[in-house]
Amino acid sequence: MTIEREKLRWNGWGWIEAPDLLGARAELVWGWMAKVLGCAALPHTPPVSLEKIALPETRLHGPALCALEAVLPAARIRTDAYERAFHARGKSYADLVALRAGMLTPCPDAVVYPECTEEVLGLLRWAAQHGAAVVPYGGGSSVVGGVNTPETACPVLCVDMTRMCDLLDLDETTRIARVQAGVYGPALESALQAQGYTLGHYPQSFEFSTLGGWIAARGAGQQSNRYGKPEKWLVGAEVATPHGLWRTEHFPASAAGPQLTQLVVGSEGTLGIITEAAVRLHRTPERRDYTGYLFPDFAAGVSAARALVQDGVPTAMIRLSDSDETRFYAALQHGDGEVGEATPYCAMLLGLEGAAEEVAQAGARARAIIDAQGGMALGEGPGETWYKGRFMMPYLRDPMLDRGLGVDTLETATGWGNIAPLHAAVRGAIARAIAAHPGEPGCGGVVLAHISHCYPDGASLYFTFVFRRDAAEPLGQWRHIKAAASEAIVAHGGTISHHHGVGLDHRPWLAREKGPVGAGVLRAIKAQVDPGGIMNPGKLIP
Amino acid sequence: MTIEREKLRWNGWGWIEAPDLLGARAELVWGWMAKVLGCAALPHTPPVSLEKIALPETRLHGPALCALEAVLPAARIRTDAYERAFHARGKSYADLVALRAGMLTPCPDAVVYPECTEEVLGLLRWAAQHGAAVVPYGGGSSVVGGVNTPETACPVLCVDMTRMCDLLDLDETTRIARVQAGVYGPALESALQAQGYTLGHYPQSFEFSTLGGWIAARGAGQQSNRYGKPEKWLVGAEVATPHGLWRTEHFPASAAGPQLTQLVVGSEGTLGIITEAAVRLHRTPERRDYTGYLFPDFAAGVSAARALVQDGVPTAMIRLSDSDETRFYAALQHGDGEVGEATPYCAMLLGLEGAAEEVAQAGARARAIIDAQGGMALGEGPGETWYKGRFMMPYLRDPMLDRGLGVDTLETATGWGNIAPLHAAVRGAIARAIAAHPGEPGCGGVVLAHISHCYPDGASLYFTFVFRRDAAEPLGQWRHIKAAASEAIVAHGGTISHHHGVGLDHRPWLAREKGPVGAGVLRAIKAQVDPGGIMNPGKLIP
Repeated sequence: MTIEREKLRWNGWGWIEAPDLLGARAELVWGWMAKVLGCAALPHTPPVSLEKIALPETRLHGPALCALEAVLPAARIRTDAYERAFHARGKSYADLVALRAGMLTPCPDAVVYPECTEEVLGLLRWAAQHGAAVVPYGGGSSVVGGVNTPETACPVLCVDMTRMCDLLDLDETTRIARVQAGVYGPALESALQAQGYTLGHYPQSFEFSTLGGWIAARGAGQQSNRYGKPEKWLVGAEVATPHGLWRTEHFPASAAGPQLTQLVVGSEGTLGIITEAAVRLHRTPERRDYTGYLFPDFAAGVSAARALVQDGVPTAMIRLSDSDETRFYAALQHGDGEVGEATPYCAMLLGLEGAAEEVAQAGARARAIIDAQGGMALGEGPGETWYKGRFMMPYLRDPMLDRGLGVDTLETATGWGNIAPLHAAVRGAIARAIAAHPGEPGCGGVVLAHISHCYPDGASLYFTFVFRRDAAEPLGQWRHIKAAASEAIVAHGGTISHHHGVGLDHRPWLAREKGPVGAGVLRAIKAQVDPGGIMNPGKLIP
Repeated sequence: MTIEREKLRWNGWGWIEAPDLLGARAELVWGWMAKVLGCAALPHTPPVSLEKIALPETRLHGPALCALEAVLPAARIRTDAYERAFHARGKSYADLVALRAGMLTPCPDAVVYPECTEEVLGLLRWAAQHGAAVVPYGGGSSVVGGVNTPETACPVLCVDMTRMCDLLDLDETTRIARVQAGVYGPALESALQAQGYTLGHYPQSFEFSTLGGWIAARGAGQQSNRYGKPEKWLVGAEVATPHGLWRTEHFPASAAGPQLTQLVVGSEGTLGIITEAAVRLHRTPERRDYTGYLFPDFAAGVSAARALVQDGVPTAMIRLSDSDETRFYAALQHGDGEVGEATPYCAMLLGLEGAAEEVAQAGARARAIIDAQGGMALGEGPGETWYKGRFMMPYLRDPMLDRGLGVDTLETATGWGNIAPLHAAVRGAIARAIAAHPGEPGCGGVVLAHISHCYPDGASLYFTFVFRRDAAEPLGQWRHIKAAASEAIVAHGGTISHHHGVGLDHRPWLAREKGPVGAGVLRAIKAQVDPGGIMNPGKLIP
């Protein structure tokens, strides 16, 4: 079971029939937002419709196309405008700005839908023979340019994996499932949960991203405290590479040289196409408890979060907003309210999942730690609200883009002792960059942040920033802000990405993070399995 | 604080002043052992003393030696017989057989003791310039030929890392320590525990192995259920490679491409020399509880072990002996007792560590699971006995070698559903190989096995086998048995090693485990960081 492309927006998030999150409150919210940013009333800035855009001619014809039709039936080789437009880019702010402006050059010369590993291998052989580049594509929800069509002299084939979506095996003895990598989140979880199991990987993109994409981007689910990132739950992978089929080791543990499965995690389509994955399952949790707490300040909340993980309280999620984010969302929720005076309070959402008794015990231990830091329970209301709307936030972006706004998110991770300095450095860098390139003279920005994932040694920091979009030079404005934030992250000891990946947007900073030897190792692995350099050119590899 | 080489046996395990484990019971035990194997009285087979062995001439002199003395002071460049003999090999059965027979060709041309990373880099530059091979050496406890001097036309430099043994930093906020890699187990734990922390990595070789060796071999501590293998506790490494210094990423989590730290784990000195490691700590456990249980049969014990890990009971160690091992050790402990009738009972040792309440809760949950499988508590006696003697077993090997016996261990891991078939296949293969190449006509062997480490999806199997050594062709006899066991492991879905590593002995089977693409990736990484192929030649890389 997969999703028909025609039901999804090619230049925005999710379903064409998307939920209207603001409803009758929309104009109130836009008025409030303009006030917060210090600008005049927000303009209407609708996107260009697909019918008005001239796509570049496809470069696939003649013998190359004939040969491609020998690999896949013609019905699964698509060159129509909607397919090519849909697959041209991912879902980053920069992607949406470009798509809404009608920028569809470059876009894939063809989109293909393989249905088995042998077909994927056939496509790679075809690409090598015919000098084509290959972009692997799952849900296409990358926000770092991970699936963007490269500008190349050669034809670009976009390989959409979403018809490879079968649960191949669920072994209850080992609690491992073998799954085709093109499966979307909801289809995967419904197949697993029908048998009493869950992978538990719920990124914000869950509804519109795939298993293979989660692995390729080395993403994180919202409940990764309990279920882990792919580093933890991927136990073996099958990857179609130009050098042949790569099946990585698949043992409970081993000392047989380095664990190569870890090279697949975060490979971003540059080594090959992930066709199958063996993943570690959990029993479907008996109970879920998402509760809100309020801390006197960010430092107190950070201390509580650190104690929760280091004392081994089994949490599913710890999410701690900074004071600006706490106030912003409270004001947004209460409609046209004022953002109000600067207050230091910080909201935490604590998620517990598991057997009923386990959740009860963890809850008691957590409350003791939270109490000790001056935290106050807000009841289950905030938790329920968050849980219900946990995949909805990306839908807010499209109406914001319709009203002359810019909005982006970026994230990093660092050790506990460095959370406060890194938070301050990145916030400051983003705010200064927005001020230096305002969309309208005198307009400011809003910079919000929260800790989204916690580990024994540190945590992630997730930044959201909103600004008045520069109508004349929106991409330049964004690049300016993005570069400032990325520089601040790398200079202050953060990783360039905690869960979004590298793609195009973080690539300039990757070599500094991996160092010269590490960067050389990445290039050597790439050259070994993809000697022709046909896999997702221009992404990741420094 | 390190260990002077002169206090350690060059051709046996541990201290020269080793504990006499058998004491007055020795002759009784040898008599019993002979009966068990079905041979005549065991002969005395003492080793050749070092004074009687002619070592090959060192090939290091002239300008090369002069240049080496510019890198390290002459006092830390050793070419005397004891140092060269001590560093010629590791501690496998085959190594001891060879050393005891006086086989010291090849042995290192010089042994050097660097004291800082810059010196290690200098040594690698020297080796590249002077065409020497480099063998990194920690405690030298490898049982797979991981540190054996290669047979090369060029000089071989053994780099002994044990003077790089400082705790550089212990960050209580992140609970991460930065440590020089040459530190021995006891020195590391005493430095950490002085501050209330532990790494918790206790392999059987703990007293005579180093942090760098644990990482390089991708070993496992006895309590890895709680503390993890290096895959889990290594958060960042510094590796001196011929291509320069490699500092791997060091973040709580990241999505910035594949996690390259995992390439260092299991690299076995073939990519470079691990000079420093950042490792994840735990609070020193408040309480330890090691209790013995007896199960009606192996299948019941396996079911209990699986339920313990899959239900998330926080154990430190689950060790389940098969029925032969259960009877053998009971008989050995009771001196000259008969091994007795074949009974199906299997002993389990369950280790719990942590806060007092955590241990109590885990104990209660464990007992319920064990009860359900018909397990019977044996009290704390067996647990205490095991805990006290947990590093002593290797000391038994030397007296066995003195009495004409052969003894070796090997290990693997597989999924829960495959434990029983793999156990049967490997036992059978070893027993048949011993029978086909008996040390004395009609002599049999003893094959014992236990599960040593458990995971949600499967477990390790650890085999011990004892046989009458073939006086004429001891290494041929061993290779015959080893090959049969390795073939059985690979053919029946096990990894070629769960925690001993690959080295020389498992290398012929590694390519089948990694597959052609994986093997190519390993070779490409090696070629990138060690283009001259000078690092630990002949090991690991398929």
